[in-house]
Amino acid sequence: MKIALVGIGKIALDQHVPALKDSRDWTLAATVSRSGQVAGVPAYTDIDAMLAAHPDVSTVSLCLPPVPRFAAAQAVLRAGRHLMLEKPPGAILSEVHALQAMAQGVSLYATWHSRMAHGVAGARAWLADRTIHGGLITWREDIRKWHPGQDWILEAGGMGVFDPGINALSILTAILPRPVHLTGAELDLPANRQAPIAARLTLSDNITADLDFLQQGPQTWDIELQTDGGTLALRMGGNLLEIDGQPVDGQDSIMQEYPALYARMAALVRQGASEVDLAPMVLVADAFTLGRRVTVAPFDF
Amino acid sequence: MKIALVGIGKIALDQHVPALKDSRDWTLAATVSRSGQVAGVPAYTDIDAMLAAHPDVSTVSLCLPPVPRFAAAQAVLRAGRHLMLEKPPGAILSEVHALQAMAQGVSLYATWHSRMAHGVAGARAWLADRTIHGGLITWREDIRKWHPGQDWILEAGGMGVFDPGINALSILTAILPRPVHLTGAELDLPANRQAPIAARLTLSDNITADLDFLQQGPQTWDIELQTDGGTLALRMGGNLLEIDGQPVDGQDSIMQEYPALYARMAALVRQGASEVDLAPMVLVADAFTLGRRVTVAPFDF
Repeated sequence: MKIALVGIGKIALDQHVPALKDSRDWTLAATVSRSGQVAGVPAYTDIDAMLAAHPDVSTVSLCLPPVPRFAAAQAVLRAGRHLMLEKPPGAILSEVHALQAMAQGVSLYATWHSRMAHGVAGARAWLADRTIHGGLITWREDIRKWHPGQDWILEAGGMGVFDPGINALSILTAILPRPVHLTGAELDLPANRQAPIAARLTLSDNITADLDFLQQGPQTWDIELQTDGGTLALRMGGNLLEIDGQPVDGQDSIMQEYPALYARMAALVRQGASEVDLAPMVLVADAFTLGRRVTVAPFDF
Repeated sequence: MKIALVGIGKIALDQHVPALKDSRDWTLAATVSRSGQVAGVPAYTDIDAMLAAHPDVSTVSLCLPPVPRFAAAQAVLRAGRHLMLEKPPGAILSEVHALQAMAQGVSLYATWHSRMAHGVAGARAWLADRTIHGGLITWREDIRKWHPGQDWILEAGGMGVFDPGINALSILTAILPRPVHLTGAELDLPANRQAPIAARLTLSDNITADLDFLQQGPQTWDIELQTDGGTLALRMGGNLLEIDGQPVDGQDSIMQEYPALYARMAALVRQGASEVDLAPMVLVADAFTLGRRVTVAPFDF
């Protein structure tokens, strides 16, 4: 099946393009981007021009930043093509609800790449019949390393530290045996920016989250949960599952995150199905709604 | 049917108690409040004590502020009673989702009192087959008049100007023929507060909203919509419907807002049904997520 990729930036070149090159399901038939290109693939700067020139492209995958993503998504759905969205599926919830209302007769897939990490399915199965007593999410990374110069991420709607933090929330909401809700939030806002550079959340089941975008040295993407059956830890962004401190075997047979997302999209298209779970986005919207803001030092890349 | 009222403050005494006194469906059998009471009605300060003492109270209506509302709502649902919620149904979306998951076998009603204003049903009917070209929401009131000394409304999670503004959004989402989404937001934050004192929103269909909590003199709660069939205006908080500047007759036969809410709750309980529409809350969460913050002068009551 032919697919087009929109937004040829870092995440597209690092993850989407290699995943599509190795896919048995997909052929990358066109790209749309202000400046980025993929060697050997027809490149456009206007999405409507691409859609008109490639009626055989059944599916479009968007890896634009959240704010400009909505207009592109509308164009894809208006043209009757299947739509796959990088996380988060939009800047705000009502946009995604509008896309859901538009997506009649096509597949809509709101991806959460971290849910495809090697340890997540095993964690969900292990937690299914257990009671959570408490937990700690530690999600600390260096914005300068992972998002060099990407000012949009700290603008209004750019989500700030929730851009990585929503990955942790996408895992949490996938593995817990019952719905989780926010109980409190504190957001650190750099004096010269509109989006938080760090956040501390409290959630139901005595779970806390420590999200930081200024981590130097070792980077940490860990979730630890205490249960009535022992302690579960997911480390390395969901890729390493430990029970009571011991790694769990058999995690290497699963696909890498982005190949798994494209395999899932192919299955959805073949089944005529959609998959849109907004639980991680709801928790972020709730943090923006409930969160107490603390002004911190200006941030510059 | 016997009902208990929790949170005996201004809105309870102004609206809920008179509506219940006149109701053919309900008898006010108990109240719960830190200090407020209703003459002749058993008064409690602890909700669990009230629930234990009144097993015949089938239904509990909460008019607490949004942040403490959730714990009370959980107590009601744990006791297996029907639950009616003042607007907004919670401080954040994930709380309400959690209540929905808990409300098995009982009726849950998230009320929006402005949707019961006299002109709303007529507006919805008139707009059903029309195309919206643009619109303006003007919702300007004096916080000192309507919420004297209520500091909670400007704390984190108190919603600020969205406490009245969500009434406008509850009407808008009820009368428009298709879903509306946010496209931009600017929030005025007093330097000494956590919640906005004013907000300017842009929405789909070229609708803008001007929300202000510092309006002196005349108060304005108007919605105007330009359509392919003329101009519709809802004035006085949804109570006066005008088409092309002319008042529409026949609006006086409808019940007042709060009596209509309690009649609706009685119908839901009798039907074993629930009604929870979160569209107005989603737009507010989206405004907090997408909104650009502007620091303005400190506010004191």
